[in-house]
Amino acid sequence: MAVTEFDGRKRVIIEDASPQVDGGRFPAKRVAGDAVAVEADIFADGHDLISAVVLHRHESETKWSEVRMRPLVNDRWRGEITVETIGFHHFTIEAWIDHYLTWRRDLAKRTADDLPVQLTIGAAMIRDAAQRANARDRKKLEAYLDTDDLEDLRSDALAALMHRNAERKFVTRYCELAIRVDRPKAAFSTWYELFPRSYGTFADVEAELPRIAKMGFDVLYLPPIHPIGVTFRKGKNNSVVAEPDDAGSPWAIGNNEGGHKSTHASLGTIEQFEHLVASARSHKIEIALDVAFQASPDHPYVRDHPEWFLHRPDGTVQYAENPPKKYQDIYPFHFESDAWKQLWDELRSVFAFWIERGVRIFRVDNPHTKPLPFWEWCIGALEREWPDLIFLAEAFTRPKIMDRLAKGGFTQSYTYFAWRNTAWELREYFEQITKPPVSDFFRPNAWPNTPDILTEYLQYGGHAAFTIRLVLAATLSANYGIYGPAYERFWHIAREPGSEEYLDSEKYEVHEWPPTDEDLSDFIALVNRVRRENRALQQNATLQFHESDNENILCYSKSAGDNVILAIVNVDPKNAHAAWLELDLDALQVDAVRPFQVHDLLSGARHSWHGARNYVQLNPAVVPAHIFRIRRRVRTERDFEYFL
Amino acid sequence: MAVTEFDGRKRVIIEDASPQVDGGRFPAKRVAGDAVAVEADIFADGHDLISAVVLHRHESETKWSEVRMRPLVNDRWRGEITVETIGFHHFTIEAWIDHYLTWRRDLAKRTADDLPVQLTIGAAMIRDAAQRANARDRKKLEAYLDTDDLEDLRSDALAALMHRNAERKFVTRYCELAIRVDRPKAAFSTWYELFPRSYGTFADVEAELPRIAKMGFDVLYLPPIHPIGVTFRKGKNNSVVAEPDDAGSPWAIGNNEGGHKSTHASLGTIEQFEHLVASARSHKIEIALDVAFQASPDHPYVRDHPEWFLHRPDGTVQYAENPPKKYQDIYPFHFESDAWKQLWDELRSVFAFWIERGVRIFRVDNPHTKPLPFWEWCIGALEREWPDLIFLAEAFTRPKIMDRLAKGGFTQSYTYFAWRNTAWELREYFEQITKPPVSDFFRPNAWPNTPDILTEYLQYGGHAAFTIRLVLAATLSANYGIYGPAYERFWHIAREPGSEEYLDSEKYEVHEWPPTDEDLSDFIALVNRVRRENRALQQNATLQFHESDNENILCYSKSAGDNVILAIVNVDPKNAHAAWLELDLDALQVDAVRPFQVHDLLSGARHSWHGARNYVQLNPAVVPAHIFRIRRRVRTERDFEYFL
Repeated sequence: MAVTEFDGRKRVIIEDASPQVDGGRFPAKRVAGDAVAVEADIFADGHDLISAVVLHRHESETKWSEVRMRPLVNDRWRGEITVETIGFHHFTIEAWIDHYLTWRRDLAKRTADDLPVQLTIGAAMIRDAAQRANARDRKKLEAYLDTDDLEDLRSDALAALMHRNAERKFVTRYCELAIRVDRPKAAFSTWYELFPRSYGTFADVEAELPRIAKMGFDVLYLPPIHPIGVTFRKGKNNSVVAEPDDAGSPWAIGNNEGGHKSTHASLGTIEQFEHLVASARSHKIEIALDVAFQASPDHPYVRDHPEWFLHRPDGTVQYAENPPKKYQDIYPFHFESDAWKQLWDELRSVFAFWIERGVRIFRVDNPHTKPLPFWEWCIGALEREWPDLIFLAEAFTRPKIMDRLAKGGFTQSYTYFAWRNTAWELREYFEQITKPPVSDFFRPNAWPNTPDILTEYLQYGGHAAFTIRLVLAATLSANYGIYGPAYERFWHIAREPGSEEYLDSEKYEVHEWPPTDEDLSDFIALVNRVRRENRALQQNATLQFHESDNENILCYSKSAGDNVILAIVNVDPKNAHAAWLELDLDALQVDAVRPFQVHDLLSGARHSWHGARNYVQLNPAVVPAHIFRIRRRVRTERDFEYFL
Repeated sequence: MAVTEFDGRKRVIIEDASPQVDGGRFPAKRVAGDAVAVEADIFADGHDLISAVVLHRHESETKWSEVRMRPLVNDRWRGEITVETIGFHHFTIEAWIDHYLTWRRDLAKRTADDLPVQLTIGAAMIRDAAQRANARDRKKLEAYLDTDDLEDLRSDALAALMHRNAERKFVTRYCELAIRVDRPKAAFSTWYELFPRSYGTFADVEAELPRIAKMGFDVLYLPPIHPIGVTFRKGKNNSVVAEPDDAGSPWAIGNNEGGHKSTHASLGTIEQFEHLVASARSHKIEIALDVAFQASPDHPYVRDHPEWFLHRPDGTVQYAENPPKKYQDIYPFHFESDAWKQLWDELRSVFAFWIERGVRIFRVDNPHTKPLPFWEWCIGALEREWPDLIFLAEAFTRPKIMDRLAKGGFTQSYTYFAWRNTAWELREYFEQITKPPVSDFFRPNAWPNTPDILTEYLQYGGHAAFTIRLVLAATLSANYGIYGPAYERFWHIAREPGSEEYLDSEKYEVHEWPPTDEDLSDFIALVNRVRRENRALQQNATLQFHESDNENILCYSKSAGDNVILAIVNVDPKNAHAAWLELDLDALQVDAVRPFQVHDLLSGARHSWHGARNYVQLNPAVVPAHIFRIRRRVRTERDFEYFL
């Protein structure tokens, strides 16, 4: 640092601004309409006062908007900006020594003999500001030149005028940081996964839409809809030899009828798929497509672009493997190929193909087996063109890799939720993923089951297990989903003991789902309605756990404005449990001395509670959870009380 | 990120390397001889194995040295480098997909039908490596081409050869980070502060050196030794009017005899000061000078460089103030002056002046009232020329500012130690400042008293308070100091109730310290000998607190190699206390099933302890602390036991 390179009179230091992901290497994530608290450590030598502002602009704007920051404690400052438009927002911070503010603070403490010179100093600052001001402000400022009334000179009105016309000398500016602003569905979405072929064609899937909409789902996610390979096709229950009539796995993509940009003939045409997309929209449901970047041996890519695959010395193409296991029906792409740029472009074009046919949400299969720099480039390139895209990363791999996928652009991420069953595991995990730094880049999407994951908990927990896991997913995480109808019909038989695979999995065969009387649909519809009607459940930032003296009872709240939800779940599907709770009343926005009402949105029951310590009993044979809305007693002018 | 700008085949990600201060904005601090654990998160897509190395070099070297990294858990990797030479060390990390290692791992799991093609693949990799290798390695590598013995092909010998001659394709390289390596005294030093004028001249201070050396101090810090201003000179006990014979405050620097580059005539000449520096060195003591960047109204700078001071509209120079308090005997420098560059250069030259006269350690007065960028520039410029300098920041201000001073170059920092009295305060504070991230840039120097700080604890705690605070400072912090003889003579009378100022403070008058019989010197000498003889106490990184069931008993350990010290202190100077301790036996390097000996280095007593739970009693009227050395029982071949 040579003296000549900078102005040593910039005395203000700005450090550790937030939100910030890896020192600004990645954008922080928010959704349109979010208020963003921009914070930083701001200080200088000595005792002079500081002024600081947040500068921010949407990528489409060239001019910065400005919001003033205020000091909190311990030299931390905060200014709040609102991000309204999807795309990238840029922000930075400027701060400077404010000699006027310092003079103003000290004025009240000056001794009489000091006042004359101080009034001269103040007048000079006001005169300087007046020269910088517009005509209106100038007139107002000059009015203060005639006074030696200390109250006037220390008034908020003058302070505002002086700030507006401050010289801002020796301003320290922080580096620029970015916020990726997604549409609100990125933060709050309710997913339903089904296998289209189990219903027949795209048109048959359309017939399911009213049922799915009635349950309250707003994303319908379809496993791959492309032609399926025949070479080494897997049979039912993943057997290595397929029977002639076996349907094959939808993830073994491609045959001589086409690949990633084609539809399976038995499902229908591209146009019929587009019709499904439009029908879904009329039910307020978006279609999410599965993108699995791998090829069956019969994929046209294998023939047309052998350079995108690794060839072994014996001339064969390297299939997927995890020695000694072989997946000869799947060829992974060779990302170290000399032709990597062409491969990247082609894969990007797969997304573009479906985007142009109306899809805006993608669930990406096994993204952690493709290079991480590829995703950052691919998602970045697509989002520049279509800023309303949503990408869900299907990765249940090592935490650092899951985090990096999220940092690199994935909008939402599958989580370890499926394997967090005890109350303390759930608490520890959700405290970690819903608070900064993780929550600045990672948005959980909680799935109690998937076609690959039938947990032991669901296998052995009976119907209550399905209710419990649904409530947990739907209230702990603003994004959640289920694989149905397996879920609402309590499918729980594993292929073999110790396996998390479904017996007779839809991954390898077509299922029929004739109508049934007893299922979880109505309960799911109720829970999803509660989610829609309570903004508290549409975000995770305010998640707060409360103490319970029974390790089987998990208690937590979320709030948005004055909407406060308190969920209490018995995580033991087999036994009734009771607990004394020790509630954090601040988080519930109730005070210690007045009763408040807890209104169970599942049962409709209302109870009057008082103070932090309250008792609950939950029997999984009846209903294993409360989802309470906190209603505060309000006293009107006429002394008429009601609950908000 | 355009595809053309980078190679998408670099699949390895390196994140969050350490040590790293503020994303590499500042160097991490270490001392010569330190082993530095370089860590990072290193991972890639898929299941291929990775190789990673740390590259490092001293600033004087152009060639990188290389150390291989090893994975720990959760994708964290570590490699250890040793920094031998003072100055700046640079390091970075390189990592790449290691196809040979992946092949080697999988080889053991291959099915028989797979082996032929795998052996061909392996042979090709070995042949490639041989072509890159020197003649010796080539011969060794080619020997493996003739074998299909899987054990040979998976041998460590071949793996080492392959690593040495790896192609290192598509290598990911992290950004470069820096480590500031100081001389060992930066991390372990024992300071004694005295006012030279209380002894007479520099020659009279020389007469004190044997006493100071006997007590075990290795830094003798002198308050400013410059001419003292007369205008507005402060009298005894900081009275605003001085009597004609009052000596004035050494911090009111400068009069017509000179300023920051002159000595006070009554202390002696520059040459006599240089003689003191040399004498001290013969006692293994270094002289530390106080640098206080401020001027009395009589300082030559005020006349010669009016542009370095702020002038008020009435033509007077702005004096130091904290309204309504005025410090008219002190003029601060005006760092927003147009002539700031000249001012910076002059201030830097003050250090250079004394460095050229043999001083290498500076205690900087109130650095937080001078711009933080100035210190970063000034210390950086000085250390480039004289890499063995040590700067102690005298700042007891807000934590963020103290941290920034340390980041910006100060070698050591005063702390809040003086005001941390209870066991839990001490534990919380030292846990924070002795662990990363803080310990990577902040080195505490703990002072139980200073001429400005006579704490309430010392005022009212009796002699035991002085013993307790000395043991705490000397064992919690590898750097510590006292202001004497006030400390060893138990000076404890404040100027007035509620004040932390000494009555009849040496800051404003000359004191005489005739010999005395009863003082703390012998105890100080003992504690300092224990520090010298036990490497555990010469660093803070291994500080570990142990549980105690009495809140007045603080228990902690430090270790260096097999040298383990366990300190137990009763922090209540008035009452005897007993406690059951729950020791962390791993930190003490003893096992749970064998007895170990605790050898009290203060009393000489030895006790045999066993397991984690042990009982202590400490009476402050006798001695309020144990400083135990842990001695482990060692059984020799001849079954002869002794304690290490």
